[in-house]
Amino acid sequence: MPVKTTARPARPRRRRLWGWGHEDDARSNEDLATSAAGLRAYLGFERADPELPPEPDLTALAPPRVRVPPALEKIASSDPRERALHAYGRSYRDTIRAFRGRFDHPPDIVTFPRDEKDLGAVIEWCAQVGAAAIPFGGGTSVVGGVEPAVADRYSGTVSIDLRLLDRVLEVDSISLAARIQAGATGPALEDQLRGHGLTLRHFPQSFEFSTLGGWIVTRAGGHFATGPTHIDDLVESIRALTPSGLWESGRLPRSGAGPSPDRLLLGSEGILGVVTEAWVRVRPRPEFRASAQVRFRSFGEGAEAVRALAQSGLEPSNCRLLDAEEAAITGVDSAGQAALLLGFESADHPLEAWMARAVEVCEDFGGRLADAPRLRGPEVSTDGPAAGGDGAWRSAFLRAPYLRDNLVVAGVVSETFETAVTWDRFDSFVRSVRERVEATLLETSGGGRLTCRLTHAYPDGAAPYFTVLASARRGSELEQWDAIKVAASEEIMAAGGTITHHHAVGRDHRPWYDRQRPEPYAAAMRAAKRELDPSGILNPGVLVQP
Amino acid sequence: MPVKTTARPARPRRRRLWGWGHEDDARSNEDLATSAAGLRAYLGFERADPELPPEPDLTALAPPRVRVPPALEKIASSDPRERALHAYGRSYRDTIRAFRGRFDHPPDIVTFPRDEKDLGAVIEWCAQVGAAAIPFGGGTSVVGGVEPAVADRYSGTVSIDLRLLDRVLEVDSISLAARIQAGATGPALEDQLRGHGLTLRHFPQSFEFSTLGGWIVTRAGGHFATGPTHIDDLVESIRALTPSGLWESGRLPRSGAGPSPDRLLLGSEGILGVVTEAWVRVRPRPEFRASAQVRFRSFGEGAEAVRALAQSGLEPSNCRLLDAEEAAITGVDSAGQAALLLGFESADHPLEAWMARAVEVCEDFGGRLADAPRLRGPEVSTDGPAAGGDGAWRSAFLRAPYLRDNLVVAGVVSETFETAVTWDRFDSFVRSVRERVEATLLETSGGGRLTCRLTHAYPDGAAPYFTVLASARRGSELEQWDAIKVAASEEIMAAGGTITHHHAVGRDHRPWYDRQRPEPYAAAMRAAKRELDPSGILNPGVLVQP
Repeated sequence: MPVKTTARPARPRRRRLWGWGHEDDARSNEDLATSAAGLRAYLGFERADPELPPEPDLTALAPPRVRVPPALEKIASSDPRERALHAYGRSYRDTIRAFRGRFDHPPDIVTFPRDEKDLGAVIEWCAQVGAAAIPFGGGTSVVGGVEPAVADRYSGTVSIDLRLLDRVLEVDSISLAARIQAGATGPALEDQLRGHGLTLRHFPQSFEFSTLGGWIVTRAGGHFATGPTHIDDLVESIRALTPSGLWESGRLPRSGAGPSPDRLLLGSEGILGVVTEAWVRVRPRPEFRASAQVRFRSFGEGAEAVRALAQSGLEPSNCRLLDAEEAAITGVDSAGQAALLLGFESADHPLEAWMARAVEVCEDFGGRLADAPRLRGPEVSTDGPAAGGDGAWRSAFLRAPYLRDNLVVAGVVSETFETAVTWDRFDSFVRSVRERVEATLLETSGGGRLTCRLTHAYPDGAAPYFTVLASARRGSELEQWDAIKVAASEEIMAAGGTITHHHAVGRDHRPWYDRQRPEPYAAAMRAAKRELDPSGILNPGVLVQP
Repeated sequence: MPVKTTARPARPRRRRLWGWGHEDDARSNEDLATSAAGLRAYLGFERADPELPPEPDLTALAPPRVRVPPALEKIASSDPRERALHAYGRSYRDTIRAFRGRFDHPPDIVTFPRDEKDLGAVIEWCAQVGAAAIPFGGGTSVVGGVEPAVADRYSGTVSIDLRLLDRVLEVDSISLAARIQAGATGPALEDQLRGHGLTLRHFPQSFEFSTLGGWIVTRAGGHFATGPTHIDDLVESIRALTPSGLWESGRLPRSGAGPSPDRLLLGSEGILGVVTEAWVRVRPRPEFRASAQVRFRSFGEGAEAVRALAQSGLEPSNCRLLDAEEAAITGVDSAGQAALLLGFESADHPLEAWMARAVEVCEDFGGRLADAPRLRGPEVSTDGPAAGGDGAWRSAFLRAPYLRDNLVVAGVVSETFETAVTWDRFDSFVRSVRERVEATLLETSGGGRLTCRLTHAYPDGAAPYFTVLASARRGSELEQWDAIKVAASEEIMAAGGTITHHHAVGRDHRPWYDRQRPEPYAAAMRAAKRELDPSGILNPGVLVQP
């Protein structure tokens, strides 16, 4: 029988008002500024003074338009700082606005339900007064998924922060599954699983702050390049509270009874209900690891090898291909070649045969090992995603969002966009997106850097992930980035990609999503939403509503 | 660029009015009878004369209640034989009724659309006259999924047979994907893929007759025990015609933009629209194979090994565990022990390391190899699912439905039921289902045989598949089987399983499905259906409607 767990981890510390990290972390604004000149020079941008953010004047926020009823006072706040902290996600647009002390659409009220009863009361109150209810997990959306920018018809906006639902409630070490509350962050749930020798091993780049519930409603992608890496594949059942009642699916492995209820919540971005907990598939901590770094003369040759690997059935855990520029900028490899980070891991068996064949495949496509593959046997696993093998890379991956703060201070536009495309159009796709975005960079920013890596590889296609770095036009960064983003999105659609592979739709991707999804499907979703959320209060503006 | 294909395979031959196979296959009713005494003795049932079916009197069918409009005459038939051929699927209930020449709910009209234009015209006509429109693929449903048993409010029933949409339209050998029409049967699509060196390798037991569209709307399970074996995982995009317009998703590998539109059609059993084609993931034909047969003292010990294998990351293609009785009855192994059929296959690499580790895992749980593992290297692949390695078993698997015809003539109730359950409750689940069904067999049939195998294994659970064999109470087989089915279904639900793992819901599983699915989800599906099919004509009675 599953073991009920009782430990409650410490409450999360308060987040910084702009940028990544916590309020009490060691990085002062002045610290961030010291790297500015060096960063700009490293990226080849002309000198510019660092910009220190103003102390934000939160008294300037418009007063709350709705008043919390007495029954909810204990779990609600209209404190300006809480409101500002729930005004944005963590996209470049969000970061710049917060950096300048500008909070366009702060929620009127922030609530912190302690349980489903609290949550039900909040939802009911919002429906009664006609306020928009916006579920908030880690607040790491990069697509405007949690920004309370809603139509005028709402009487106000209420952010529902799920941070108090942060526990691993049950562990079934026979079936390798755990019941976890939706507000648990990556570190919180990993901390609680560790004592059972288990791990979810779902490491999106937002891991430190993002939550299980957020992963589910945005269909988050983990750091594994192949195999079950999307949260979709790790979910066994979901429990959610809708305005029309409790939605709970059974723990029924791969039940084929009707369309999957879970798959309708996965990616639903809070419009049908608020996820409160889920059973997820966990695994023993890996004991065997193999890793290698392979160089390719061109990104195209590397991509051919990645395709062969994805179609081989070997299922490498890591199979990230960086173009030469990204390899250089990130310090992974300065050989001026595309770099493939290849890794395998297992809790069950040594990986010599897997790695040997994978290296053969790479060599068939002109790949050359940078060093001999590293193979490691059973060992005491160290903590966190950074442990072992290609862990150094993964650790840098998770630290990257912090670096963006330095770039903002240095006056560098720093943002990413990502997509997925079938292999048959891969080369021309990457080429045309590159051309279009580079032309737009020249137009808007006098040039800049555009790098590309492959984050996920499937038998039928791959997920190219682009990073844009440009010298900021101070004071009009939003227009500058918007022009780049529109160009990228238009070209992605024209060339046959998806508007998002794992960053979700939110408010920012709506124009392209609306063109992408089948119209009868959109009609079905609108009907489902009307049925479950007749007042239309749940996260209006994402996916289906104006 | 994908290659457009042009070949059209021969039209399928006409099916037998009862049982499996074609009208012109070699098995006369008398042939079927010759094995009767032997079969009964083999199963330990007392002697009984074989029963030969009557020549059915199809002139007794009620005349069609709706008249085909002139524009549809070319693609419609009210021929009594066609109507009878579209009256049932192929469950035991269906087989017995057809065997006795009884056709409870024949469709009034059978249509054979040649393209989406025809299909649209049929749907439009049905909506106009208020007739139920029932999509029909291979007619192999075992859950009443295609039986035109609908509420009185419909003016009539129209079967939509998709057999003319049987082509592989495009092959993308770079992305390993193919665009295939929904009416293509297993052999038809494999025949068309073979010339490209590719295969879908989706082999449900109904493979010979069932169709891609049928697989999609019922979430069919293939013969692979682990990994991507469900059609869900093989679908890249779907095209369907709804009464409200065309639904077509893009070829966007693992797009995370909103909930997956495809996942809403997968398992939809025709209530939202009629699938017309899909891009599916194909693969090179396997060149390396490894197989082994492992004996376990008990089914429970074998299941422990299967769990360890499913959690190991080795992903065996075959990992079927048969209990001692099923191993004996099917002639797989007469050692009186549970038998595990273990196999690996790959188009890319030799499988020594995989098999060696899998055998170690089995031995850890008391398994003993029946013979040395068989390993085969690159070779010219032979045709069909039966080729190579554990192909003999697979071939027998696909022939099994034919054997049921012999059993019916011999007066043997022969039916299966299947489910899935998490590993933590696996032992008690199998025990309680066994006890309940064996008690019911004793009550209803004076005893009988109940065997169990595991067909699919996941890290978090497995799919037990039960076979029931009992001496038929001639003339009241339906009541006899219904009592067994109700007992099995009630116990499955009580013990925490799903009412179906891969046989779908249809009309037969509705009472249990209605208890199983989350109520808000059912409300969402009803709303989606009202939106897309406002006349409620599409396959009424399955999933959401009375």
